Amino acid sequence: MEHNLGNTIALLARTPAALNGLLRGLPETWVLHNEGENSWSVFDIAGHLVHADRTNWMPRARLILEHGETQAFASFDRLGQIQASQDKTLEQLLDEFISVRAECLDELRALKLRPENLQKRGQHPALGTVTLSELLATWAAHDLTHLHQISRVMAYQYRETVGPFRKFLGVMRCEGHGT
Amino acid sequence: MEHNLGNTIALLARTPAALNGLLRGLPETWVLHNEGENSWSVFDIAGHLVHADRTNWMPRARLILEHGETQAFASFDRLGQIQASQDKTLEQLLDEFISVRAECLDELRALKLRPENLQKRGQHPALGTVTLSELLATWAAHDLTHLHQISRVMAYQYRETVGPFRKFLGVMRCEGHGT
Repeated sequence: MEHNLGNTIALLARTPAALNGLLRGLPETWVLHNEGENSWSVFDIAGHLVHADRTNWMPRARLILEHGETQAFASFDRLGQIQASQDKTLEQLLDEFISVRAECLDELRALKLRPENLQKRGQHPALGTVTLSELLATWAAHDLTHLHQISRVMAYQYRETVGPFRKFLGVMRCEGHGT
Repeated sequence: MEHNLGNTIALLARTPAALNGLLRGLPETWVLHNEGENSWSVFDIAGHLVHADRTNWMPRARLILEHGETQAFASFDRLGQIQASQDKTLEQLLDEFISVRAECLDELRALKLRPENLQKRGQHPALGTVTLSELLATWAAHDLTHLHQISRVMAYQYRETVGPFRKFLGVMRCEGHGT
């Protein structure tokens, strides 16, 4: 299916409102607990989304447009938000996500990308050749993978509270599909 | 972990805003397509959430409070929204969800349930004895299972558009954990 950039931007523009609606003011049970061991809480995931918008998506898009395949993307630091989120509240992270996302989308729209620009290629450090189209579609799908994770981490907190209903709740059987 | 009804209500109160923020005005690609065969689109899931609030959760809670285990719950018609959603738009369903959820929570809060009320037992047609506590916790977890499903159904629409990035996106490997 051909990539419709308008569809991608439509989703990217809505994720901050979705997370804000779901999470702002929720009790700690839902947002500070994780799935055990080194897994992420909702707070960690919110920090990751802010960090990825700041350091990953538009910087990589610019690199493709300016240098094509001649310069590989810097590796993304998947734990980079830990330091950046210290001493913040979830509400501060939600505010930051709203503002960094709006800035990134302003920048993306200002590029006025045409279909031929979307086919421009870059070098991913692990995946090899990727197109700008694939990078931008992945930005939107990355929001969805973390919305999927957030719903699972939250459901995990009620795995005992729901009693026998657990067998009817698919999210309780999701094992995270880790990479 | 003991069931804190305030935490349950906090989540139930936010899901309509989360779905409204995510879905209102999204292009058809995201909301009218499903995962193939008889699977549900985002539109179908929104209709299901409205239908479940209208016919399932508070009616069952009232039945437990009024009749205990002497009267089993009516079976929930998992496809009951199909007819009710015909000829509606997603935006109408989102409006209905906002209003039916607010009405249900007004009713729940008005019951002023105490811990001992939450231990009251009812008869589920498939699960046998369940408590009011478990029923109400499941109402919240049911929101999460459908948020999990929505993010997966939406990600499915981009399974080819993301190209090689697919392997990094856990949601693309979620198989739905069907019951």
